[in-house]
Amino acid sequence: MAIDLNSDLGESFGAWRLGDDEAMLALVTSANVACGFHAGDPAALLATCRAAASRAVRIGAQVGYRDLAGFGRRFIDISPSDLTAEVIYQIGALDGLAQASGSAVGYVKPHGALYNAVVHHHEQARAVVAAVVAYDPTLPVLGLPGSVFLAEAEAAGLRTVTEAFADRGYLPTGELVPRSQPGAVLSDPDLVAARVLRMVEAGEVVAVDGTVVRTRPASVCVHGDSPAAVAMAVAIRDRLGAAGVAIAAFV
Amino acid sequence: MAIDLNSDLGESFGAWRLGDDEAMLALVTSANVACGFHAGDPAALLATCRAAASRAVRIGAQVGYRDLAGFGRRFIDISPSDLTAEVIYQIGALDGLAQASGSAVGYVKPHGALYNAVVHHHEQARAVVAAVVAYDPTLPVLGLPGSVFLAEAEAAGLRTVTEAFADRGYLPTGELVPRSQPGAVLSDPDLVAARVLRMVEAGEVVAVDGTVVRTRPASVCVHGDSPAAVAMAVAIRDRLGAAGVAIAAFV
Amino acid sequence: MAIDLNSDLGESFGAWRLGDDEAMLALVTSANVACGFHAGDPAALLATCRAAASRAVRIGAQVGYRDLAGFGRRFIDISPSDLTAEVIYQIGALDGLAQASGSAVGYVKPHGALYNAVVHHHEQARAVVAAVVAYDPTLPVLGLPGSVFLAEAEAAGLRTVTEAFADRGYLPTGELVPRSQPGAVLSDPDLVAARVLRMVEAGEVVAVDGTVVRTRPASVCVHGDSPAAVAMAVAIRDRLGAAGVAIAAFV
Amino acid sequence: MAIDLNSDLGESFGAWRLGDDEAMLALVTSANVACGFHAGDPAALLATCRAAASRAVRIGAQVGYRDLAGFGRRFIDISPSDLTAEVIYQIGALDGLAQASGSAVGYVKPHGALYNAVVHHHEQARAVVAAVVAYDPTLPVLGLPGSVFLAEAEAAGLRTVTEAFADRGYLPTGELVPRSQPGAVLSDPDLVAARVLRMVEAGEVVAVDGTVVRTRPASVCVHGDSPAAVAMAVAIRDRLGAAGVAIAAFV
Repeated sequence: MAIDLNSDLGESFGAWRLGDDEAMLALVTSANVACGFHAGDPAALLATCRAAASRAVRIGAQVGYRDLAGFGRRFIDISPSDLTAEVIYQIGALDGLAQASGSAVGYVKPHGALYNAVVHHHEQARAVVAAVVAYDPTLPVLGLPGSVFLAEAEAAGLRTVTEAFADRGYLPTGELVPRSQPGAVLSDPDLVAARVLRMVEAGEVVAVDGTVVRTRPASVCVHGDSPAAVAMAVAIRDRLGAAGVAIAAFV
Repeated sequence: MAIDLNSDLGESFGAWRLGDDEAMLALVTSANVACGFHAGDPAALLATCRAAASRAVRIGAQVGYRDLAGFGRRFIDISPSDLTAEVIYQIGALDGLAQASGSAVGYVKPHGALYNAVVHHHEQARAVVAAVVAYDPTLPVLGLPGSVFLAEAEAAGLRTVTEAFADRGYLPTGELVPRSQPGAVLSDPDLVAARVLRMVEAGEVVAVDGTVVRTRPASVCVHGDSPAAVAMAVAIRDRLGAAGVAIAAFV
Repeated sequence: MAIDLNSDLGESFGAWRLGDDEAMLALVTSANVACGFHAGDPAALLATCRAAASRAVRIGAQVGYRDLAGFGRRFIDISPSDLTAEVIYQIGALDGLAQASGSAVGYVKPHGALYNAVVHHHEQARAVVAAVVAYDPTLPVLGLPGSVFLAEAEAAGLRTVTEAFADRGYLPTGELVPRSQPGAVLSDPDLVAARVLRMVEAGEVVAVDGTVVRTRPASVCVHGDSPAAVAMAVAIRDRLGAAGVAIAAFV
Repeated sequence: MAIDLNSDLGESFGAWRLGDDEAMLALVTSANVACGFHAGDPAALLATCRAAASRAVRIGAQVGYRDLAGFGRRFIDISPSDLTAEVIYQIGALDGLAQASGSAVGYVKPHGALYNAVVHHHEQARAVVAAVVAYDPTLPVLGLPGSVFLAEAEAAGLRTVTEAFADRGYLPTGELVPRSQPGAVLSDPDLVAARVLRMVEAGEVVAVDGTVVRTRPASVCVHGDSPAAVAMAVAIRDRLGAAGVAIAAFV
């Protein structure tokens, strides 16, 4: 048994620092690196790409809405053609920095409100898929199991990778509890590690209302901007290691 | 005899339109396409890249300062390492859009205040050169003859391409008359065409004070945002054609 | 009989010009001036405020989403408390420029997608109203008749001013035809002038499907960014003048 | 004897937090609140204004270059007329938020690279002064003793307030050691408190080279974004209090 661990990195901007990219890169196998639209100035992104490359952590393009003030966490009713162009732009920009670091963009994962939107929003889901197809149809995409996004990606011939969230609460539908509601974010390392192990071993996670939800992710996300991010990632690695589960990139 | 004609394109932003990219792409051989930092939203850039690709006009990355409000025309005292990262980011972003259009970034040209800064500013010149080397050391760079930028580029092993400006006044030093001074911008198509022919045939241009300045450019720039841009480009093509000078990309 | 004519002005940004503010200011009685979030750099806004002040045209704060790339025409799911702060910020910024021009902000009108959102969106409508109340509860607000926005404003004790659109198509519900649909934008000066006269005299407008919709606006909007804006405003003034309708500010 | 203590606050942006505004507001008498151009989203600024108002800490407008990515720490060669408009816009925006909080902007202080620029740069200094005069000529301005900015402000009839920096190294000229050089930033609370007491009592500070520089500030700045900011402000208050120096706003 093996599982990929991914984390959102490169989320600083100028004088503002967020997350501990160096520490997280020692713990995860896939780095979802911001692309400058919701976070990430080029110099910080270049530093994160170099650190990821030096540790052989895979770099993914975490594309988002153009909304620094909202950190990409607010839905924007952007037209599909504009969104496609914005996603191509972001992947290309990060790929430039990744290649200048001796690596390359290896997959694409939408961020924040865009991630949530493409669970249901057909036009925006197709727009993101169209961007990946136009940029490089061999790039896999990460997304929520059962999302419109993964369905559209599959229909377009892209490789899809399902993920679960270590530190987020689930609704009985298998969607995430919105950040505005109680139970949305978890931070207890032991609890989080136990949830991840159950996901990997038993293919299930307990939702906020106690329902057991089926999930069989190829990758598990630990958010890098959480204060407990490093502790959670360490606990997950320890718990999985003790149970004989390997941590390995999904490719 | 042959000369390349280049023009700054892709300089719209959202609802704001600037220049007539379609018309200019029928007239020039090299398109300096903005990269989103001084101008150019991704959808507009993608449209310009597609139009350039369909006409087999070469696409260059016109990298600039991050300054939409100032259109990249204000010097910013950015650190060299930040500038290098910003230039890699911009080239990569445009290259993504260009490749999605069936073309690719074929050269790099700094824009506006960055163009002027790297005539003299060693650190910023080296920073731009470092970005091109890191991104793709086979990409040529366009710049002002005699500039620190071209000297640094040559020292770093990049191919350098000298350019002259069809519609800008010259100082006796061979530098451009600053936009804030009289004689900075020319707009008479016949006059401009005659100047270009003299540059190509005789290797000289008359400066604002009447001095004859030596110049032997490999490419001539016609600004795309000038109201007379199309008329000037037509006049230049006609005049050069009548004199037996071919218009051809510099590669 | 009298009617106020308002127009969206101050919508340039940096090197990008939009609309002919000088010409429109000779024709309208109320200027909805952008506040920098969807359009308007401070220098352009100051110039528009000065021109409005010199012609005794009233200045309104046209507040919008923070979205230069989308010109404020894309719905953003911003939190009410963030929206309130953003609207206060925008009113204050424009009021500073207006007061430095010898005038002052005299009313508030939401722009673009925010205007449309607050027709129905209770939280965002209340958030905009809260901002006006916090900034200056004597400021009137302009909005669509029947909108949640005007209802909330009235409930909060603000003076409300209803408006109709000279150059926009109407749905049978009294809402505007979305810009993405046919019939959304009108540009024939005679037709537009006739519609405005009928609104003022008869209190009605013909919707896209032929339905006659009741409307009794206190102000009529002519968009300043339309190529035909000046011609339409001239035609409206002529037609109303010939019919004995005075053009006068709504205060 | 009395001295004003001022600090740069409101420097968060969206998801990115910087400084501990609540803690600093319990310690200083004047809050230089960012205005959104180098830092400060409206919601964060409103929260800081409310907290300042509730503690009767005076609010100053800390105006800066439009440069979120550079935190206003990079010189921008902006035209004087653009700069004047940008400063009016910023003061007005913050004043709106301050007035909505039951307070008002009580003074103006340039930030970062603009602060440093107007020590010598006549055009930019005059542009900032012109903005304050246009907005409200009764507002005092804070600046470096001996700066062109304070000279221009005085010539324009503004009240000027000199300040010294508790946590910055000095050159023998009385200017600050640039942040790129050793000795630029101090962080030892005891050392910093001792320096401040000597400034207030003896009117002098020891420069990086050992030179004793004359300074007789009306206000002393402690940077709010320093990790040791709170500890330094506490130490300064204690040391001054023990020496019988009152901490009081400069008005």
